[in-house]
Amino acid sequence: MLRVDLNCDMGESFGRYRLGADADLLNEITSANIACGFHAGDPSVMRNTVRMAVRKGVSIGAHPGLPDLAGFGRRRMEVTAGEVYDMVTYQIGALQAFVKQEGTALRHVKPHGALYNMAAVERPLAEAVAEAVYKTDAALVLYGLAGSELIAAGRARGLRTAAEVFADRTYMEDGTLMPRGMPGAVIGDPEQAVKQVLQMVKEGTVTTASGRTIAIAADTVCIHGDGEHALSFAQMLRAALEKEDITLCAF
Amino acid sequence: MLRVDLNCDMGESFGRYRLGADADLLNEITSANIACGFHAGDPSVMRNTVRMAVRKGVSIGAHPGLPDLAGFGRRRMEVTAGEVYDMVTYQIGALQAFVKQEGTALRHVKPHGALYNMAAVERPLAEAVAEAVYKTDAALVLYGLAGSELIAAGRARGLRTAAEVFADRTYMEDGTLMPRGMPGAVIGDPEQAVKQVLQMVKEGTVTTASGRTIAIAADTVCIHGDGEHALSFAQMLRAALEKEDITLCAF
Amino acid sequence: MLRVDLNCDMGESFGRYRLGADADLLNEITSANIACGFHAGDPSVMRNTVRMAVRKGVSIGAHPGLPDLAGFGRRRMEVTAGEVYDMVTYQIGALQAFVKQEGTALRHVKPHGALYNMAAVERPLAEAVAEAVYKTDAALVLYGLAGSELIAAGRARGLRTAAEVFADRTYMEDGTLMPRGMPGAVIGDPEQAVKQVLQMVKEGTVTTASGRTIAIAADTVCIHGDGEHALSFAQMLRAALEKEDITLCAF
Amino acid sequence: MLRVDLNCDMGESFGRYRLGADADLLNEITSANIACGFHAGDPSVMRNTVRMAVRKGVSIGAHPGLPDLAGFGRRRMEVTAGEVYDMVTYQIGALQAFVKQEGTALRHVKPHGALYNMAAVERPLAEAVAEAVYKTDAALVLYGLAGSELIAAGRARGLRTAAEVFADRTYMEDGTLMPRGMPGAVIGDPEQAVKQVLQMVKEGTVTTASGRTIAIAADTVCIHGDGEHALSFAQMLRAALEKEDITLCAF
Repeated sequence: MLRVDLNCDMGESFGRYRLGADADLLNEITSANIACGFHAGDPSVMRNTVRMAVRKGVSIGAHPGLPDLAGFGRRRMEVTAGEVYDMVTYQIGALQAFVKQEGTALRHVKPHGALYNMAAVERPLAEAVAEAVYKTDAALVLYGLAGSELIAAGRARGLRTAAEVFADRTYMEDGTLMPRGMPGAVIGDPEQAVKQVLQMVKEGTVTTASGRTIAIAADTVCIHGDGEHALSFAQMLRAALEKEDITLCAF
Repeated sequence: MLRVDLNCDMGESFGRYRLGADADLLNEITSANIACGFHAGDPSVMRNTVRMAVRKGVSIGAHPGLPDLAGFGRRRMEVTAGEVYDMVTYQIGALQAFVKQEGTALRHVKPHGALYNMAAVERPLAEAVAEAVYKTDAALVLYGLAGSELIAAGRARGLRTAAEVFADRTYMEDGTLMPRGMPGAVIGDPEQAVKQVLQMVKEGTVTTASGRTIAIAADTVCIHGDGEHALSFAQMLRAALEKEDITLCAF
Repeated sequence: MLRVDLNCDMGESFGRYRLGADADLLNEITSANIACGFHAGDPSVMRNTVRMAVRKGVSIGAHPGLPDLAGFGRRRMEVTAGEVYDMVTYQIGALQAFVKQEGTALRHVKPHGALYNMAAVERPLAEAVAEAVYKTDAALVLYGLAGSELIAAGRARGLRTAAEVFADRTYMEDGTLMPRGMPGAVIGDPEQAVKQVLQMVKEGTVTTASGRTIAIAADTVCIHGDGEHALSFAQMLRAALEKEDITLCAF
Repeated sequence: MLRVDLNCDMGESFGRYRLGADADLLNEITSANIACGFHAGDPSVMRNTVRMAVRKGVSIGAHPGLPDLAGFGRRRMEVTAGEVYDMVTYQIGALQAFVKQEGTALRHVKPHGALYNMAAVERPLAEAVAEAVYKTDAALVLYGLAGSELIAAGRARGLRTAAEVFADRTYMEDGTLMPRGMPGAVIGDPEQAVKQVLQMVKEGTVTTASGRTIAIAADTVCIHGDGEHALSFAQMLRAALEKEDITLCAF
């Protein structure tokens, strides 16, 4: 029986600033990656988001980012492996307290933005993330880009890992994502995006920009929470997966 | 057998900024209140301070403050009980992760600066702190000003509490501290400060500004970490307590 | 000939977070109070907002706030007069650089949120704001609550001042605003709000909660930028003022 | 007649955190680069530092940095040219307000840390800094690494520039500094450091790591403010320069 996890970044509001349709999207997804106050989120947003996720039975993960609220954690910073280890530990711990207060347990960790991208290709940073996760709770699942150094480092450390794929991004022959700036990098047609996910989950393959078919692991699909059509796409993808008898559940 | 705890605020450096003689003071105290990144401290400072405390066998507590690095958490802010509950939860959780990674457990929580003072007199804020501590870990000890609303709220919630006294501050007849601005508020003579602590621990009393003797609970003595003579006073106080066969140990 | 200024807080977005319908509201108002990066706004938002205001011929003022992004500058903080003087100077200077780069000059200063409220009643803080404005540029107009300590301090310092009134708030007999928590504090009916402004501008009076008519100076009307109906109310008020041949122009 | 400027970073304290021996160093230098609140400094520190510099007759410059207090502006961040333009404008403006309040004028701008290093080699960032400086006040002098893109961009924009040299750093044959990690990168012997400066100023050359003599412009010498021997080295260098009849004055 086929199964896949649908994950979405959540809790990215801050103070008076609102972001994302969290309440609606929680009806469609199986795992929520909740911001921890560095790139987005604040203690009160964290508490509210955790409570909503618990109420809707969605699995909760920490979504640690770089300390850059102004840049939403999307600007690369020259951080050391030690700094990454410490900032990931801090953020997981902070979220964990809210999760425990609501009577449940944290299930996974998925780095955010530039930290996600840096840990995908820089092994020392990937190892720092994996170590921080492992030392905080060895039962946590580490989410990372399918085929990345982060997934490799997580496995090497003894963590369970979830390989993440993207519905709306074009893949290269080496399994990496086509950079956003390039033409064709983003799949604008929702039906084609759904089709790509179905192929990934059912066949374990993806068709690259060049037309080749390559193998890809698809444990979890990233649902973007911030586009105009985020909710309708999530609903459409969910319906298509269920029609194919693919079980939607947290990893 | 008489016993008392000596506690000191620690880990208040930030980035390149250094504060306090933490390494030396850890030799003299029995409980360390470690800053959690809001009024002071950062993830790397937290990790280093936790490691030092573990190595020296000093009991570790969280020292949550208001989100005001520029004001060192000393400026009152008009925060709601809900905001206090959330910010205390967040900070305890963050520190807890470092403590667990080092193979030990968090023992207590002591609010910092303006938050400590506000929770000493405003019952709703005191209850918010107590609730956040209790919900995070009911085994934690809540440190607060002897005779304060915070101690009362902690007890009402079912927490163990530690009544904190000050060696170098003059007390009023109602058991509160003489405000810092007033003449005689701070006891400048170290010998008199030591004498005050001995009376508090041995007799359970303190002599007020007006000359009356009133009852005071003295579970833990606050050692200031930042004065010029912080270390020598800590050594002097420790020696005086040991000479009287008073056991120094974490609560 | 009667004249009045319509002012609105602007440039309160931050990083990826968007707030307010600035572009639309700039068509309706005559003075923009632009956030300076403490309670809201960032350098790039400031530049964009200044450019928009210049393009639309709207007079530009600085809108300095407390250093509390998480609380949007609405939480009172225990700041000293010296700190207020410094933080207001800093923020005016920062905005002034953008304004000069666009070839125009800063015209006014209006404190934000808790700083506005504190400076309305605490004379030392009011004087600190007035002094910072005067010392930075004695030609700046100081905006403050009609009848407040801030207006008095500004005049005493030799500044031109603009007394601000609110369309949608109920006034007390002493000329202060009815606190938001009380029933009837906010005027929900747009027509009644417009009527209140017309009376203020034409008669120089306002009818209080108790039904008395008191004198009020109305140099400038505050347009809220963040409600659902902010834009339509601004348009309605503008039309009503123009119909009465009241000239809309910056102070 | 030979002349040279001695500049030093100043005003890098923050809130309760103290850094640098500013008051003493101001007796030895001719130009102070004052932090503007992004990588270090706060409004009150800025005011105090400006006042001290004015009192001692030291020329004042802005020292803008990346928005990274935790990393002291030393961690490279992936910022766009537009972001750099805006953050430099903001910081110059903020400092300018304090300088004007003290009755004098801002004289120069020197980027800090990672921003200085990035602008030394990345032309678009160098141009963004130069443009922000020029548009704010075309009379400002732009300080940058001798031979850098920043100096070139400043000249191209029509700014006066000051080529900065380092007393205690070893130079490579292409005129760049030997990276700090490499052996021999830092000149530990004060006498050798003084000798290097004298050669730079008198001969217009420097002897590289490989032993070659290359041309170097030396308009201003960077005095580090934070080492243990910062003050004594500054005094020693100053004495050596004066003995050679080299005039010490701001650019």
